[in-house]
Amino acid sequence: MSVDPVALTQDLIREASVTPDSAGAVALVQRVLEQAGFACTRTDRNGIPNLYARFGTASPVLGFNGHVDVVPVGDPADWTGDPFGAEIRDGTLYGRGACDMKSGVAAYIAAAVEAAAACPGSLVLTITGDEEGDGVDGTAAILDWMASNGERMDACLVGEPTCPDQMGEMVKIGRRGSMTAWAKATGRQGHSAYPHRALNPIHAMVAYLARLTGKPLDGGTAHFDPSTLQVTGFDTGNAANNVIPATTRAMVNIRFNDDHGSAGLSDWLRAEAATVTADTGVTFDLDIKVSGESFVTPPGPLTDLVQQAVAAETGRTPVLSTSGGTSDARFIKDHCPVIEVGLVGSTMHQVDERVEVAHIHQLTAIYRRIIAGYFA
Amino acid sequence: MSVDPVALTQDLIREASVTPDSAGAVALVQRVLEQAGFACTRTDRNGIPNLYARFGTASPVLGFNGHVDVVPVGDPADWTGDPFGAEIRDGTLYGRGACDMKSGVAAYIAAAVEAAAACPGSLVLTITGDEEGDGVDGTAAILDWMASNGERMDACLVGEPTCPDQMGEMVKIGRRGSMTAWAKATGRQGHSAYPHRALNPIHAMVAYLARLTGKPLDGGTAHFDPSTLQVTGFDTGNAANNVIPATTRAMVNIRFNDDHGSAGLSDWLRAEAATVTADTGVTFDLDIKVSGESFVTPPGPLTDLVQQAVAAETGRTPVLSTSGGTSDARFIKDHCPVIEVGLVGSTMHQVDERVEVAHIHQLTAIYRRIIAGYFA
Repeated sequence: MSVDPVALTQDLIREASVTPDSAGAVALVQRVLEQAGFACTRTDRNGIPNLYARFGTASPVLGFNGHVDVVPVGDPADWTGDPFGAEIRDGTLYGRGACDMKSGVAAYIAAAVEAAAACPGSLVLTITGDEEGDGVDGTAAILDWMASNGERMDACLVGEPTCPDQMGEMVKIGRRGSMTAWAKATGRQGHSAYPHRALNPIHAMVAYLARLTGKPLDGGTAHFDPSTLQVTGFDTGNAANNVIPATTRAMVNIRFNDDHGSAGLSDWLRAEAATVTADTGVTFDLDIKVSGESFVTPPGPLTDLVQQAVAAETGRTPVLSTSGGTSDARFIKDHCPVIEVGLVGSTMHQVDERVEVAHIHQLTAIYRRIIAGYFA
Repeated sequence: MSVDPVALTQDLIREASVTPDSAGAVALVQRVLEQAGFACTRTDRNGIPNLYARFGTASPVLGFNGHVDVVPVGDPADWTGDPFGAEIRDGTLYGRGACDMKSGVAAYIAAAVEAAAACPGSLVLTITGDEEGDGVDGTAAILDWMASNGERMDACLVGEPTCPDQMGEMVKIGRRGSMTAWAKATGRQGHSAYPHRALNPIHAMVAYLARLTGKPLDGGTAHFDPSTLQVTGFDTGNAANNVIPATTRAMVNIRFNDDHGSAGLSDWLRAEAATVTADTGVTFDLDIKVSGESFVTPPGPLTDLVQQAVAAETGRTPVLSTSGGTSDARFIKDHCPVIEVGLVGSTMHQVDERVEVAHIHQLTAIYRRIIAGYFA
């Protein structure tokens, strides 16, 4: 059998799977893959629908990861058509999930179904219904199930949109880590006319944040831009101009490259706070939450294969990038090398999200080349 | 006639003149002074009761300034007696206004009434019903009326409580200036993962405040402690840890000595903001309000007279201080030399505000000596 990636994208868009209500879209993927002979296992967890599909039993195992949940549409009246209508106008397919990332899932299914029968190894697809939401019971649940059941991948592609503007210009071989610290500084309340009887926590917090922002975290690494630290909140809640408040709070978000780990950065955040406490007497409480560590799949045969496949279909050799926010690749990197290769993402999460029909076919051809090359 | 300063303090406390509802207390002062032969003129403005009283027509003119309004009592149940009962228990007089500053007004009236008939110059009392509130139509209104009517003082005492703990330990010859700046920093909103596309106003505000707090404004002057700058507010109102907000605000309160004027400090605040704008691109809007300039009555014959009078009655030579917050002396200093001399203020604005009866008599005797010495 063969799968039309454009028609499948349309069918998936018409399943209005706003996260986490994505059971219909996951079921649709399951039906298509079962019809093509893939062995499918639902690995749902805490109400999140997840699908593990495998064709073949031999090694090596090439994996694919994607999600079929989408973000909300906002006010449908802002769209030029039905956000779940999947209309094609002038060669462009419109709808929520058109680029992020039902088209990527459909393109890979089309390529995998076509290649499966002749594949000397195995093809695995891990499809979740919760990537746009919390993500704790999505891809992570599939990987947990795989570990418990002796299932593994030797390499994995992720079908997220990876190109800022032009088809083929970028693939992603890693992501920065992300963490947030909520800092509370406690001094001693008093009258601003008698500051020697008080202890101003705002001054201490300013000194602390000046230390944190005073110099770059690093100058970038072989595969990463420089790490960044942004103070995204600073609040005191004191309206009286002549009162030194007792406490103040700030919020610091760090995106870090492979020069750092969250443990080392946490130590640094605490050490700088301790220095300011020693200088001022103001104490700090830090609440630190880590969203993910940085990771990278270093350039090698896998990245070469992907770059050659993209170049063959688009005429562009894609940049190996580690820019941007998080994706489920952050879970997969603990299991096997992972690389993200997909469509142009410029309209993702926006009104009138859309994809050029020709790009879906291009991506299908890219995936076809990667599968063929991987098992060659 | 003679006036009992303790009984008059009690009568004034029983006029529950919580600012600005002080008409009864001002009227009581007026009745007492008229009975003693003072020429009294009401210089009320915008509903605030004010009294100008003069005995004699010759020069020199020794003035006195005081207020008979009081701050609220809070919950009366927290007091050990009626806040307006003016009870004397164990030699201590309790009530709102007992030290701030109905006792000071009563003590000066007692001394002035006694001295008036034999005075070779003139005695002037300026009594307002609004010092604890806005103060714009209180002493300032009396001084405006005096200027319009050719009335003047050659020197003026203010009867505010000036002693931190012990009778006689301190008089005040000046006050620091006070001003507040509300700063708003405007950058460009964005995602914390892409800070190069945004412009973080918190970082710029931290840099600005680090500049303002980085070094002392001065090291103090001959008569003043060092000026102080306190950041009393910093608020952003952004709860999303991955969003760089567009704006943030801070509030800065400055208490400055005679090394500075508010105009120069305003220029400095704006210049530092302009430097940060040049460095960062973040723009600043500053809203600056000046409560008062600094001033000082330099040590000389007047301060010598006051110090000697205090020392003769208390055994302590008072420190010539410029510490603490604002008072109506800030208006009077534009008209004539002014010095504040009064009671122990440790319970002012507190529950169970109180004064030792013996201190009221001591203060009356101090004022008697100052009047006698001034006209000697």
